[in-house]
Amino acid sequence: MKYSKFETELQVRPDDIDMNQHVHNSRYFDYVLAARYEQMEHNYRFPMQQFLSLGFGWVITKALVNYKRPLGLGDHFIVKTGITDLAAKGCTVGFEITNKKTGKLCCDGEFEYTMVNVNTGRSEIIPDWIIEHYTI
Amino acid sequence: MKYSKFETELQVRPDDIDMNQHVHNSRYFDYVLAARYEQMEHNYRFPMQQFLSLGFGWVITKALVNYKRPLGLGDHFIVKTGITDLAAKGCTVGFEITNKKTGKLCCDGEFEYTMVNVNTGRSEIIPDWIIEHYTI
Amino acid sequence: MKYSKFETELQVRPDDIDMNQHVHNSRYFDYVLAARYEQMEHNYRFPMQQFLSLGFGWVITKALVNYKRPLGLGDHFIVKTGITDLAAKGCTVGFEITNKKTGKLCCDGEFEYTMVNVNTGRSEIIPDWIIEHYTI
Amino acid sequence: MKYSKFETELQVRPDDIDMNQHVHNSRYFDYVLAARYEQMEHNYRFPMQQFLSLGFGWVITKALVNYKRPLGLGDHFIVKTGITDLAAKGCTVGFEITNKKTGKLCCDGEFEYTMVNVNTGRSEIIPDWIIEHYTI
Repeated sequence: MKYSKFETELQVRPDDIDMNQHVHNSRYFDYVLAARYEQMEHNYRFPMQQFLSLGFGWVITKALVNYKRPLGLGDHFIVKTGITDLAAKGCTVGFEITNKKTGKLCCDGEFEYTMVNVNTGRSEIIPDWIIEHYTI
Repeated sequence: MKYSKFETELQVRPDDIDMNQHVHNSRYFDYVLAARYEQMEHNYRFPMQQFLSLGFGWVITKALVNYKRPLGLGDHFIVKTGITDLAAKGCTVGFEITNKKTGKLCCDGEFEYTMVNVNTGRSEIIPDWIIEHYTI
Repeated sequence: MKYSKFETELQVRPDDIDMNQHVHNSRYFDYVLAARYEQMEHNYRFPMQQFLSLGFGWVITKALVNYKRPLGLGDHFIVKTGITDLAAKGCTVGFEITNKKTGKLCCDGEFEYTMVNVNTGRSEIIPDWIIEHYTI
Repeated sequence: MKYSKFETELQVRPDDIDMNQHVHNSRYFDYVLAARYEQMEHNYRFPMQQFLSLGFGWVITKALVNYKRPLGLGDHFIVKTGITDLAAKGCTVGFEITNKKTGKLCCDGEFEYTMVNVNTGRSEIIPDWIIEHYTI
């Protein structure tokens, strides 16, 4: 396996709970995003702010979530993410969210991203030095 | 084609916009959800509240979104949804979100649902009379 | 009365409902914000985008909401807002949110704003031509 | 001083950031709510779930936020809250949110709550044993 996986622990906020008394479906997206930002900073040592300040950005092109078991009020959970594919112009990030208490899988899935030059808004070939940052 | 498609017009709210100056990725989920509730009431004539009060619920099992072009502040958009598959215990709902002004596709995808008995929390065979409600 | 009041009709989205089966408390903020943007465009004829592009912004300094009756799933409601005070460097906007069906008050309150120069981030004396835009 | 103050550390999530590149104004509400739930469990040793299961609930009647300095992407912050008034049928909770890195105040304010019987939906005199739980 070429790319590492990293884990971030987070907790459900009361405003994440919807009328069904579970975490609202779209919030799992936000959990993966939060974990990914945290891992860019602490694991890849390449914070998103730095990435943006260099004129690059990631634009999401596809999101897939398979829901298994919902999270509830106050639950602590682990978001494990890792690059599963890194191509010329983009990458795929896989994820698994696990309930910390039960150890059971809540959902998994993947997000596809294209790298863009934030000045032109167009996709670009990912420079080698960026690929190196992610190839750990 | 066995199942109809319906359209709902909505507008981006300022709180939907994220740091990238576009609608936050996870909010497209919420737009489809909002359109679906509206269509259950006005097109299927079977509001979600009625569905729930009869002891049934829909649990999402899979969400897939293909992002094409982002929506921005104040944009009006059309959410077209329709059942693409209705099986013994669940259904698949396809959707397309289109920018009203440009007529261009913003994103499409599908959601898979399993029907549950809200008292037991378990999946159940969808009764014929419910299938009839959706077979229009 | 020196300043007009304007009304915007909106509808509760399913993702606005929280675990208490009502609109989540903080979402009323977002409803007022949405109404205010709409009214800047259609009533003041001075869209926020134009305001920002001229180098000005409004920074909120105080928010007060008095909650009377909650809104629920699918409710349509009216957001009435109006400037109640316009001073050298800021303004106060009062609001009332009313349930369209019952005509009853859901909440009221006020937001205080300071005008800032978006380039310096500092507050500035509001130019006369901006005051004129709002004095209708 | 009759009532204790408690502190909870939280972190800004990327989905909390709005088009102004700061935490969205209404999210500070949600931060106070999250801190309050955490403090009910760990400081008052009286989790909200237990409170609800006994047939009681808190309904917000007033929210006041004074905004001083915004929080930004990735910021860690401290939410200090404490009861400032506990009356026959309700209470007032004061709060301060401080940026952990700078030690500077981001916002403060207060929330007023009325206690309701969740079965009748009506306000009730707060029983002595509940008052004792909060009088620490």
